[in-house]
Amino acid sequence: MSRFDEFGLIDRYLAPLAIHPAAAGLRDDVAILATGSLLGDLALNADAIVAGVHFLPGEAPATVAERALRVNLSDLAAKGARPLGYLLTLALTAAEGEAWIADFAEGLAANQSAFGWSLLGGDTVRTPGPLTVGLTALGERASGGMGRGGAHAGDEVWVTGWIGDGALGLAVSLGQTPILDHELAAAARAKFRRPEPRVAFGVALGESGLASAAADVSDGLVADLDHIAVASGLGAAVEAGAVPFSAGGRAAMAADTTWLARLLTGGDDYEIVFTAPMSAAAAISRLGGETGTPVACIGSMTAGRAVRVYDDAGRPICFDRGGFRHF
Amino acid sequence: MSRFDEFGLIDRYLAPLAIHPAAAGLRDDVAILATGSLLGDLALNADAIVAGVHFLPGEAPATVAERALRVNLSDLAAKGARPLGYLLTLALTAAEGEAWIADFAEGLAANQSAFGWSLLGGDTVRTPGPLTVGLTALGERASGGMGRGGAHAGDEVWVTGWIGDGALGLAVSLGQTPILDHELAAAARAKFRRPEPRVAFGVALGESGLASAAADVSDGLVADLDHIAVASGLGAAVEAGAVPFSAGGRAAMAADTTWLARLLTGGDDYEIVFTAPMSAAAAISRLGGETGTPVACIGSMTAGRAVRVYDDAGRPICFDRGGFRHF
Repeated sequence: MSRFDEFGLIDRYLAPLAIHPAAAGLRDDVAILATGSLLGDLALNADAIVAGVHFLPGEAPATVAERALRVNLSDLAAKGARPLGYLLTLALTAAEGEAWIADFAEGLAANQSAFGWSLLGGDTVRTPGPLTVGLTALGERASGGMGRGGAHAGDEVWVTGWIGDGALGLAVSLGQTPILDHELAAAARAKFRRPEPRVAFGVALGESGLASAAADVSDGLVADLDHIAVASGLGAAVEAGAVPFSAGGRAAMAADTTWLARLLTGGDDYEIVFTAPMSAAAAISRLGGETGTPVACIGSMTAGRAVRVYDDAGRPICFDRGGFRHF
Repeated sequence: MSRFDEFGLIDRYLAPLAIHPAAAGLRDDVAILATGSLLGDLALNADAIVAGVHFLPGEAPATVAERALRVNLSDLAAKGARPLGYLLTLALTAAEGEAWIADFAEGLAANQSAFGWSLLGGDTVRTPGPLTVGLTALGERASGGMGRGGAHAGDEVWVTGWIGDGALGLAVSLGQTPILDHELAAAARAKFRRPEPRVAFGVALGESGLASAAADVSDGLVADLDHIAVASGLGAAVEAGAVPFSAGGRAAMAADTTWLARLLTGGDDYEIVFTAPMSAAAAISRLGGETGTPVACIGSMTAGRAVRVYDDAGRPICFDRGGFRHF
């Protein structure tokens, strides 16, 4: 991160976060990770987020940091990978000074404490354009863990948590419909700003060997289940009545029935959708209980080639399957 | 890279570059790298570059790609790390369409062929601001290779290639002084736009165990040697007359003596500065010959705490040690 050293801010705010020995306290541009003590697989994921595109302008820096890390933790969790560390590139505008860095670093620190990983390195530069944060996340797991392509026809489809809260939280944050009461609106906003990646459950699921395939729900449930279906050469049948929705989601659907489709296809839920043989159902429920993670079976994989969602009368629900579009 | 899949460009232009099995053809957001077959250390380096800040606006996309990769390869080379792969985040403006991606991908492909590494994953998003490229580079090496902190007092200081060509090439590219003849000016521009990272030499030097410390020359020779000096708790004495300058650098100094200081402190050379005991001199020269890399001994490490450069009369040359500033 030498280019920013002249401001002295790296040493003060970011170096203390480089707690992994590989980072050598950010005194070097290059992190050196000893691979001998790692589990068999290293999971690597990179994301870029742009102010005004991927987060709301004026969002608190700590929230931006937390969200960026949590989104990447969700990707790792869906692979059953334990968080190891991350490299961070910050392109800052003239508006982001020491106070911004200090607050951003607080978000990083809170996240590291919660999830037990470490800043490993990165780069900090100036940009005339919007603030842009790049993140490469590293996780580790035993060799040959969950992927997207292992589902079999007849496997059950499961999800963690609640589906559609990302879309709901975004709509509320933008001041758009639906009209929710104050408490539900605040909960939806909070879940959008600070998603809860299913790290403990994902790691436990990976170690259990129960799941045949998994993906995180970031593009929307239908699109992400479709990723599993395509990779496995299958289709899927989901019962809308079995999909878990939050109190906010249920209130939104009660006020406006088009919200069913929006919850099922909206992005940014950061839950895990996964498949498993029927024989694993009891063990999966137990895993959910042990990690404090709600889990629900919502359908099954089919020999067809499409992901279909059925209403309570068994009729397929039609909606644009395009999945997630950024605001 | 799912967010950009809607444009179909990932499949067409970037997926063919994901030749490493860890990338699984970019069909998944997360790359899974099996660590069992790796050498002992994984070297990780992240950089962000912004159009108009780190490269000239209007630069050819293939050149932007080549330069971004080569700059990161230089960091890996200074650690003796063999290139393994990279994750790429692209924040593109509306101006960068399919033609831009196609040309950018050609630069990536040319680089991968030349240096034997692979795209591993990434993310492509839209930005209203300037084009921003984030890169996380991965290399591998045997455990416990070269670092910055291992130099001893009395060790000789060596550099590869020519010092100052980065600063010279930038000045020429910006149409600033010095006045060089057409051929030298073209050579300086070319070396700035497409630096030659010392990958083969860096890997060989790391494997040889000859060097006590190494760094890449990216912030300027004086600043990067200072990184070694500080990390080793030492100083250094450099003889200006022993520093290798290119024909362009020598012509610039002949026209304007202030160019000596600019060449010694300018950035973007992407050479390697390293230290080694005097007994290693012959073996180092041989290593340079075997890898086709010019190497020169330019001074030695001292028990002092400063990096000093002396002229032919033995007088210290004074200049601002601030090192590299971006244009």
